[in-house]
Amino acid sequence: MPSSKSQKINSPRRKRKIIVHIATSADGYIARKDDDLEWLINRPAPKGFYGLPAFERTIDTKLLGRRTFDWSLKMGAPFGGKTQDFVFTHHPPRDPPPRGVEFVTESVSDFVSRLRAAEGRNIWLMGGGGLIASFLDAGAIDEFIVSIVPVFIGEGIPLIAPLHRDTPLSLRSVKSFADGVVQVHYDVLGPGKSPGE
Amino acid sequence: MPSSKSQKINSPRRKRKIIVHIATSADGYIARKDDDLEWLINRPAPKGFYGLPAFERTIDTKLLGRRTFDWSLKMGAPFGGKTQDFVFTHHPPRDPPPRGVEFVTESVSDFVSRLRAAEGRNIWLMGGGGLIASFLDAGAIDEFIVSIVPVFIGEGIPLIAPLHRDTPLSLRSVKSFADGVVQVHYDVLGPGKSPGE
Repeated sequence: MPSSKSQKINSPRRKRKIIVHIATSADGYIARKDDDLEWLINRPAPKGFYGLPAFERTIDTKLLGRRTFDWSLKMGAPFGGKTQDFVFTHHPPRDPPPRGVEFVTESVSDFVSRLRAAEGRNIWLMGGGGLIASFLDAGAIDEFIVSIVPVFIGEGIPLIAPLHRDTPLSLRSVKSFADGVVQVHYDVLGPGKSPGE
Repeated sequence: MPSSKSQKINSPRRKRKIIVHIATSADGYIARKDDDLEWLINRPAPKGFYGLPAFERTIDTKLLGRRTFDWSLKMGAPFGGKTQDFVFTHHPPRDPPPRGVEFVTESVSDFVSRLRAAEGRNIWLMGGGGLIASFLDAGAIDEFIVSIVPVFIGEGIPLIAPLHRDTPLSLRSVKSFADGVVQVHYDVLGPGKSPGE
């Protein structure tokens, strides 16, 4: 078939990148089962904070799952700064969100088409593992930047919610920091879940 | 208490190191749930095979869990070479093991005390995740060398069988290879499972 309704002519679709920038334990978890991040937060970070402030200057939009958002609010994370933040949830709360935050109930693919069509900087997909899985399986993640913290926490919430996948990656770079954190940066070369699933 | 029965005077206990040298997917799995390693094996490896032959020259003993051993036999892996190989199992098979292989039913801590007391080179703890967990929780692993393959497989057998842990690591080195494999090398600084568990 030479054409498809879902393909936009001359669309700058891949211009704005959706990038996961996240920390994991050395055994691949983004948090303990009870969302505890003590192992991550109570570390003195080296100067430059693993390149995160520099990364933040390249994005204008943040995407979060509801659980990550609720946890962030509880921890006093700032919202309504220079970014437009979208929180994915099937059941938005009745209270209006903080300034700069919008609740999203539409499908990932509809949302992503709309977001990519709009002008703007790159987009930070912050997590958690459920939202990363949904985006990956929709073919909507361009890059992963994972900061591997030198600690085994043994069990917890995986980086990507479990499902059979076969997603090749291309290593862009690897950096190590004085405190033993290793940061790997990948381009996503394939879709998330395997064909036919 | 100034002394302890379990402490040996002038014992060269830490002389022979027990080292995990293993590959994981970029999402932290050592195999798919059904033990499938297609994602790992069907890759052209760069010259030097990730330093594995050089590593093998530093060891004279291999430790394997039963499932890993059965899988290795099925895949035609060689046993009875230059190393003494120990397979941990609660139920040794009736058939005698291949030459150079011994089945072990004793506890990890008893076995490790005996092994460390004997003269020899370093010891390669090959896996799987269950045996790595048992050794880690017995404080019996000195180093981890993990080759991170640039692919997400989505779900599978974790590097370390799940249990709440808080095991700090110290990064010795990180290397990257032309095919995007990143190899991290850690010293284990703490025990496996958390105190009191």
